[in-house]
Amino acid sequence: LETLWLVNGRHAGIDPADRGLAYGDGLFETMAAIDGRLRWLDYHLERLADGCLRLAIPPIDSSVLLAEIEAHCPKAGRAIVKLIVTRGPGARGYPPPDQSQPTRILGISSWQPYPRRHYTDGIRVGVCAMRLGESPALAGLKHLCRLEQVLAEVELRGRDVEQGLLLDTRGYVVGGTSTNVFAVRGGDLLTPAVTRNGVAGVMRRVVLEGAREAGLKPLETAMTLEDIKDADELFMTNALVGIWPVGRLDERAYVVGPATRRLMRQLEIDTHA
Amino acid sequence: LETLWLVNGRHAGIDPADRGLAYGDGLFETMAAIDGRLRWLDYHLERLADGCLRLAIPPIDSSVLLAEIEAHCPKAGRAIVKLIVTRGPGARGYPPPDQSQPTRILGISSWQPYPRRHYTDGIRVGVCAMRLGESPALAGLKHLCRLEQVLAEVELRGRDVEQGLLLDTRGYVVGGTSTNVFAVRGGDLLTPAVTRNGVAGVMRRVVLEGAREAGLKPLETAMTLEDIKDADELFMTNALVGIWPVGRLDERAYVVGPATRRLMRQLEIDTHA
Repeated sequence: LETLWLVNGRHAGIDPADRGLAYGDGLFETMAAIDGRLRWLDYHLERLADGCLRLAIPPIDSSVLLAEIEAHCPKAGRAIVKLIVTRGPGARGYPPPDQSQPTRILGISSWQPYPRRHYTDGIRVGVCAMRLGESPALAGLKHLCRLEQVLAEVELRGRDVEQGLLLDTRGYVVGGTSTNVFAVRGGDLLTPAVTRNGVAGVMRRVVLEGAREAGLKPLETAMTLEDIKDADELFMTNALVGIWPVGRLDERAYVVGPATRRLMRQLEIDTHA
Repeated sequence: LETLWLVNGRHAGIDPADRGLAYGDGLFETMAAIDGRLRWLDYHLERLADGCLRLAIPPIDSSVLLAEIEAHCPKAGRAIVKLIVTRGPGARGYPPPDQSQPTRILGISSWQPYPRRHYTDGIRVGVCAMRLGESPALAGLKHLCRLEQVLAEVELRGRDVEQGLLLDTRGYVVGGTSTNVFAVRGGDLLTPAVTRNGVAGVMRRVVLEGAREAGLKPLETAMTLEDIKDADELFMTNALVGIWPVGRLDERAYVVGPATRRLMRQLEIDTHA
């Protein structure tokens, strides 16, 4: 149950001068490993490369990374592979070094199945009072600056929900505390655009790409809480849980409807087995 | 010139599971040490305690911290003492542990004097194209999520300026890349409020508290770039540099005026000696 940590391939601590710690100056990916194979690996690596480009962090060598995962990831069963890439160590102050030496941190841990009822009956969700900010420069990225999400989780302590629903300061829906959100309305499949905030989730991409095959028209758009409450079906996604139907949002109950079930079947995500 | 790092009092690396690294889940203070004494120590500790309260991080024992600084800070000359406090190690995921064990990271490094002309002629400042986001839940805190500031510094590479001036997505002025900004207009001393973004700087507090003695009326308010350009005098502050008059903002030149010079004398900050 312990996590195996590798820092640049070694069992070591992090340099206190690392900019990932000092400034949240880095990115991460959380990946599902099944029998030693990483699910949606290409999408994770693409998002990571895109993030490095946007942050001007030198790209990491994926062959080194993959060899490391190959050497340490369990060959049988499920595991969670978390990868953190930071800009590496630096002097004090925000200006990055001219030649950054990124730090590659790999954490491999066991993965307990989620309760079956999350998939069959849907999860319980509560709207958070805390409003997320907006940061267009960072929107979409899975960067290390996640203090707002942490505060949302502090707020959810003691509330009987599996996810919080986060709105931003303008009142628009961003997503779940650690998930993207989708609403089915007629033949449309709506999800918040990730242009002002939010994370471009890997599972979000998988769902958007699979929508038409499931007979749904995918729409990335601005969404209000009313749009969510008016939805026929609602579900939340991330690369570990796959698709969680929403069974309840505060007082509003939802059915686990045919579109959600079709998508779940079609994408063959079976993380509760 | 090397930095001496102490992690919970020991010469050690950071646990890769530390939430400061994983989520920017922590705070920092950068303090000026002169002959072993920390300038504005009370204000730094107050801001830190306030930040811990807002983030629900257990407060650190300041007697332990002060003993550590006493033991390791040079007794003569200048040094920079950087303190990072994180929520400590945790399991994967945003929810914090019920009982956090905060990590205390102390970095002590040498402090080269800033060029004298920064104080006599003023610094050169350029407006950044990148717009800062807004995050009311985190506004004012000196938290570890500083990726926007890093991106601003990436943008400033190769530009001949000492600070960038940051506007937010609404067009309001937030401050310098690593400073707060003040504008003198008539008898008023204006600085951006830190309610939607920005850092409640220790030197900002020192200046606001000293304004009336210098014959100025302090005002924390929303400020546009026009307010800045219309100012009689402009200066930037942080706990290390003290007060830097602005000599030039893009094409606009400013004089190092009487109000700025009076404040500099009054607050007896002499960091360029």
